[in-house]
Amino acid sequence: MRNFDENSITQAVLDRVAQASDPRTRQIGLALVRHLHALVKEVEPSMAEWEAAIGFLTRTGQMCDDTRQEFILLSDTLGVSMLVDAINHRDADGATDTTVLGPFYVQDPAVFPLGSNISDGIKGEPLFVSGTVASADGTPLAGAAVDVWHSDADGYYDVQQMDELGGLAMRARLLADAQGRFHFWTIRPAAYPIPHDGPVGEMLAAQARHPYRPAHVHFMIHADGHDTLVTHVFVAGDRYLDSDVVFGVKDSLIREFPSHPPGKAPDGRAMDRPYDSLHYDFRLKRKPA
Amino acid sequence: MRNFDENSITQAVLDRVAQASDPRTRQIGLALVRHLHALVKEVEPSMAEWEAAIGFLTRTGQMCDDTRQEFILLSDTLGVSMLVDAINHRDADGATDTTVLGPFYVQDPAVFPLGSNISDGIKGEPLFVSGTVASADGTPLAGAAVDVWHSDADGYYDVQQMDELGGLAMRARLLADAQGRFHFWTIRPAAYPIPHDGPVGEMLAAQARHPYRPAHVHFMIHADGHDTLVTHVFVAGDRYLDSDVVFGVKDSLIREFPSHPPGKAPDGRAMDRPYDSLHYDFRLKRKPA
Repeated sequence: MRNFDENSITQAVLDRVAQASDPRTRQIGLALVRHLHALVKEVEPSMAEWEAAIGFLTRTGQMCDDTRQEFILLSDTLGVSMLVDAINHRDADGATDTTVLGPFYVQDPAVFPLGSNISDGIKGEPLFVSGTVASADGTPLAGAAVDVWHSDADGYYDVQQMDELGGLAMRARLLADAQGRFHFWTIRPAAYPIPHDGPVGEMLAAQARHPYRPAHVHFMIHADGHDTLVTHVFVAGDRYLDSDVVFGVKDSLIREFPSHPPGKAPDGRAMDRPYDSLHYDFRLKRKPA
Repeated sequence: MRNFDENSITQAVLDRVAQASDPRTRQIGLALVRHLHALVKEVEPSMAEWEAAIGFLTRTGQMCDDTRQEFILLSDTLGVSMLVDAINHRDADGATDTTVLGPFYVQDPAVFPLGSNISDGIKGEPLFVSGTVASADGTPLAGAAVDVWHSDADGYYDVQQMDELGGLAMRARLLADAQGRFHFWTIRPAAYPIPHDGPVGEMLAAQARHPYRPAHVHFMIHADGHDTLVTHVFVAGDRYLDSDVVFGVKDSLIREFPSHPPGKAPDGRAMDRPYDSLHYDFRLKRKPA
């Protein structure tokens, strides 16, 4: 129980961690120690590199606040978020593909009536968004809660510019109608760099990686008796579709955002300027009975 | 470059991380991704468990400030610190054994004259500490900088009670004399729990582990032309020697702290009450020429 060297310490730690009474806690602790020690044994960090790693993780945590989640960015940029997502959605069974939550979701967004403009007057190309929510077998899901959030035309989310905006914008909860349909107005989002003025940005720079994500609209959809769907819809033709910094793009989630001339929009609104549109039919996976 | 699933994403991330131009950055990035993804694939975390992991790491970073280093505690309690220490000290070549730095070191402590009492009046059993600093071949190292720090009789360091103490105490830098000798007075340290009111404490509780370290005095010794020695001297007979929460005990670092009756102490001081003593002869590894 003492005099541990690099050959004996791993088993000593495993023996200690194995004391956990909860089987899942024990399993995770044992796996963590094995893989973490294997990493250290492979890399053989110098004392200075160990100190740098401690400092990196510390600054990553300290960068987090109500509107910034640097550890999610780290998970996203190391492909961990998409790996966890894939592991948890092996059997889509006809449901819409999933992708990362990202760091900008805000719990319980304000409910907007169908047809609302959720952009709160922020400048940008008008975008008409419509969609349907159904169970994987096609049954419409009346009253499904459709949470949406997206960036502005410069690629920034509301939570990144709260001082300027004075509140949230470009995010809402819509409630699908009796046929599972929803629609709303907003502005067209842009491709953007993830926040890269912190530790994750340092890592990306050291790895000669750009910090960009292709333009997209986030959706999180809840309906009784179904798994919550967390996904995006990406804009077709974006230059970053094949190099998304968080590895989140799937072909099934790409849609054209076509432009329309001024005139009567699909919801009857008279548009005196051009606007774009997006339509997506979402399918949710029914929970096991 | 899209549609990644759990079989393809790891290679996609590796390809991206491999863009790093610095070979060591590339090597560390690749190893990190492989081991991290292997951990995720083995554990198969639920979305809720991934969120819990993000939250744990975030709170660990946010717990850190000028006097608390929770990520060092995490590294220590997972045996990573001792593993890194072992990897970096494979060839002791007659030098004193090393152990963890711990989270309580303060850079550039105040220099105290030899023979000083460094306890700043804090209550405890008086302890006379003496030692020598020499190169591994026995050559005395005149002027070696001996940094010492330790807990009080209740197991708390100065930085854990700055409000009460109003400043640092039980830590100092001593400069060895021409024969490489040093001595000072302080109080006898106690076994103590590492700070366990944060995420690391939650982890230890979940793993049914006690948070205690056996009583010890920390030493960090600098001398020109030699590797800096980071180590402790542990108190013989301590009940936690075989279950140190950070796996740091080595037999070569354990010493008796014998008690002495009132009378003339080794430095000539007349003691009107009993006192304990500690002596250790440190050996530093010469740097390659």
